[in-house]
Amino acid sequence: MTKTDMLACPPAMEFARNQWYVAAFSSEVGRHILRRQLLGDYVALYRTEDGTPVALADRCPHRGLPLSAGALDGDAIRCGYHGFTFAKSGQCIRVPSQATIPEKMGVRSYPLVEKSIWIWAWMGEPELADPTLIPDHKKLGLEDSNYTVTEFFRMDVPGNYQLLHENLLDVSHVTFLHPGLLDDGNVAGSKTALELADRSIRISRTMDELATPELAFAFSLEPGKRYLRTLVTETTPPGLSVIFNTHEDLANPAAPARVLISPFGITPANQSLTHQFVVTATSYEGKQPQAAIDHVWRIFEQDNVAIRAIQERYEETGQYGPEFSVKADMAALRCRLKNAELVAKDRARAA
Amino acid sequence: MTKTDMLACPPAMEFARNQWYVAAFSSEVGRHILRRQLLGDYVALYRTEDGTPVALADRCPHRGLPLSAGALDGDAIRCGYHGFTFAKSGQCIRVPSQATIPEKMGVRSYPLVEKSIWIWAWMGEPELADPTLIPDHKKLGLEDSNYTVTEFFRMDVPGNYQLLHENLLDVSHVTFLHPGLLDDGNVAGSKTALELADRSIRISRTMDELATPELAFAFSLEPGKRYLRTLVTETTPPGLSVIFNTHEDLANPAAPARVLISPFGITPANQSLTHQFVVTATSYEGKQPQAAIDHVWRIFEQDNVAIRAIQERYEETGQYGPEFSVKADMAALRCRLKNAELVAKDRARAA
Amino acid sequence: MTKTDMLACPPAMEFARNQWYVAAFSSEVGRHILRRQLLGDYVALYRTEDGTPVALADRCPHRGLPLSAGALDGDAIRCGYHGFTFAKSGQCIRVPSQATIPEKMGVRSYPLVEKSIWIWAWMGEPELADPTLIPDHKKLGLEDSNYTVTEFFRMDVPGNYQLLHENLLDVSHVTFLHPGLLDDGNVAGSKTALELADRSIRISRTMDELATPELAFAFSLEPGKRYLRTLVTETTPPGLSVIFNTHEDLANPAAPARVLISPFGITPANQSLTHQFVVTATSYEGKQPQAAIDHVWRIFEQDNVAIRAIQERYEETGQYGPEFSVKADMAALRCRLKNAELVAKDRARAA
Repeated sequence: MTKTDMLACPPAMEFARNQWYVAAFSSEVGRHILRRQLLGDYVALYRTEDGTPVALADRCPHRGLPLSAGALDGDAIRCGYHGFTFAKSGQCIRVPSQATIPEKMGVRSYPLVEKSIWIWAWMGEPELADPTLIPDHKKLGLEDSNYTVTEFFRMDVPGNYQLLHENLLDVSHVTFLHPGLLDDGNVAGSKTALELADRSIRISRTMDELATPELAFAFSLEPGKRYLRTLVTETTPPGLSVIFNTHEDLANPAAPARVLISPFGITPANQSLTHQFVVTATSYEGKQPQAAIDHVWRIFEQDNVAIRAIQERYEETGQYGPEFSVKADMAALRCRLKNAELVAKDRARAA
Repeated sequence: MTKTDMLACPPAMEFARNQWYVAAFSSEVGRHILRRQLLGDYVALYRTEDGTPVALADRCPHRGLPLSAGALDGDAIRCGYHGFTFAKSGQCIRVPSQATIPEKMGVRSYPLVEKSIWIWAWMGEPELADPTLIPDHKKLGLEDSNYTVTEFFRMDVPGNYQLLHENLLDVSHVTFLHPGLLDDGNVAGSKTALELADRSIRISRTMDELATPELAFAFSLEPGKRYLRTLVTETTPPGLSVIFNTHEDLANPAAPARVLISPFGITPANQSLTHQFVVTATSYEGKQPQAAIDHVWRIFEQDNVAIRAIQERYEETGQYGPEFSVKADMAALRCRLKNAELVAKDRARAA
Repeated sequence: MTKTDMLACPPAMEFARNQWYVAAFSSEVGRHILRRQLLGDYVALYRTEDGTPVALADRCPHRGLPLSAGALDGDAIRCGYHGFTFAKSGQCIRVPSQATIPEKMGVRSYPLVEKSIWIWAWMGEPELADPTLIPDHKKLGLEDSNYTVTEFFRMDVPGNYQLLHENLLDVSHVTFLHPGLLDDGNVAGSKTALELADRSIRISRTMDELATPELAFAFSLEPGKRYLRTLVTETTPPGLSVIFNTHEDLANPAAPARVLISPFGITPANQSLTHQFVVTATSYEGKQPQAAIDHVWRIFEQDNVAIRAIQERYEETGQYGPEFSVKADMAALRCRLKNAELVAKDRARAA
């Protein structure tokens, strides 16, 4: 892979399907039908009477009405138009106007795995759905008793999913897009180190930072103190980016570091809309208060202004480029490449 | 025609033009200009001073302003931009900036026939416009002194016109889409009989039915009694579907049957929007009260939810299918075929 | 050029770029960033600290965010995403994440000339930007001490810019679109004289006119008196149309004529939206009052109804035609031709 190839790689216009993506927070799915678009597919999400989550293609094969416009009938789902009914496997089990059920009538059922606070879906070939491919949740702080987990929110962002990963992989933007809110003005200029692993891209920065009142609020620090901050983004394409913030008290090196892990489930709804599932795990005690959640929502709305503007231009002109990349973009470009490789793998398999 | 051919026939994407369609209720057209889209054409509808309805192409041939943005000038219509004026025949009769009127300047005039409560328009070649081809209004209860006519409403439905016919031809949907409102839960499971005539498709069902309070209200029955109900849909493509509801008192066979005829004028505005003209004729006395009209409006809004959802999916994907048809769909599929035949006839004539 | 060629010429679908267009009123541009679309390009307009107006392409070359979403930094503009900063020449002068600035990184800077109450922009090749090509402002009453200038407003009109010129070149429309507001009913029928110059099209009408209360208000006349009115439209494609209204007191020929000059800066935002900059210069004293400005705004909204309707039809069908032209359209057709010639000239140069 030459540098030229890398620079020429645009945001992904296809999705890697034989991959796990966060489909929903556990708390969103219940004994009702939730319609959600994932990788372009409309999906009807619900739970059976014993609580098992189910994801069916949200389109009655008879006349095309979304099944989500119908109703649950025990563990099955009944179309609201002519009453055709489908089991959680997707198989049709009732046609009200006749006794015989056509054997081939059914809808697609997507494999799901519920882990910690969310539900992962496999949007590709079901026989390839291997739960061990889901990223390690202990590393995310989500299945680790040393961390306190707070579910933040799902934000539907009007941009291609790659733009969200790139936003997180080039945190130099916090100095300009969120001035005073997430750094003391020195992130953009800090040195970066890039590490590539088989499945992930990791970029880290270390800086001596003053805990302004805003930073003290955001990271539970002592205002006015100086900390050694390590800021890491680790992206596992196509569906996960994680930001690790570690603050060590420079005046008291023996004090335990304060760690805030922010895993982002990043799931394309379609080419121009992305579900962003936000959660945090902290090494210090206590759930994050609602005020902190609201604060992060407002910060992410600033990101959305940038992402939306880039996406709108794309909608108008049909291209993201031309782009002029600099050294700080290497992590983002690696992420594009990885996504392109995953898509190519799907294609090779299909051919 | 094989069954395979029939199953492969999608909703009509072209319109048969050498046909009569309901253009408006009589009550909608007067000494003002009504702009309406019919089969993709914008039409300006008005009445001359003696009350004759007129339909002209709604576009000034000079610079393209809709004539409906202008004003009536006696029996003529005057463009609101530069004052070009057109007689009811469509011929230009005035150009304010000059004395000479170019002989070829004019707009298309569409043949109209006013019958009972509505006005039919011929959207094809004027010389083929034969009023005897308009469906028999006596059979619709509209020109029959034994029936009382009530004009209900025009509803503009966000779907292809074929979806509206199909909705009426597969009444098994009333059990699921309008639960408790139009049947006692047994329509979907009732036996059907299909009859094909040269110009129409007729599907009928007979059932023993309990007059719930809702049915008693909808069909002027005695609550709690049992009736022999005959439910017939007769569609005359491309522009008319009629539903006949007949209730016979099972405890008193000598009592006259209660008949409610609902003719539906179904006129495409364009591929994705359809004008539905709703009227009823009842064998029992008295106009339908406003409460009944409002009740039917609300029921049709439920149909619209289904039709809109199917249409939206079509707009997104460019196709209505794939579909999986069952026996109850035969009437709807016959209707699609008939519409396709009428379009083919137009094409053959044009070639 | 035959008459047939002329009649076949549709409104311009391309823009002549090597031309001056009004970009903004001077009063609109200051020490903030104004985003405006001109000839399809998004442009960021601002002033440097010494007041010089600047126009830069409104897209950061790094990741495509509009620069107008950023902030001014002295005479430069800083992107709001990652802080890349650009001088008024368009050259990048800062990349916060690194010390080296790629030499080729920059954005396009458009030549501007500020004259009287507005700023002209050159949207084509910078080396061709000759300020002497800007129409003579003295002739417009804008740089002539005998005239009082009043800035009216910018109106964004939902139609192709050619439709605006045509509206002004065929003033026969005032009799029908603005009845009673801009004439006593006799403009449409008045005789016209057409004069063609190298760069402009001039059409004039003379009429004996009664100063109705509305006309007296619009043109500062004495109500009830009769005037000899000369009404001239002079269009200099592609960006300027001027209307000259001269009223001479028929009862008192010695009295000075009352002249109202209305220059219209007509600048395409894109194919279907046009900025119309409206200003007046009067030979009589005193700025026009706000009531007169509001009155003209309302009259132009009537024009917009016509222009929007024609444009909407174009959006739907993809063509402005077919059109049927008459003698009064000759001026407008000449304007189309002139615009087409200017586009052809650009093309020839590019080839």
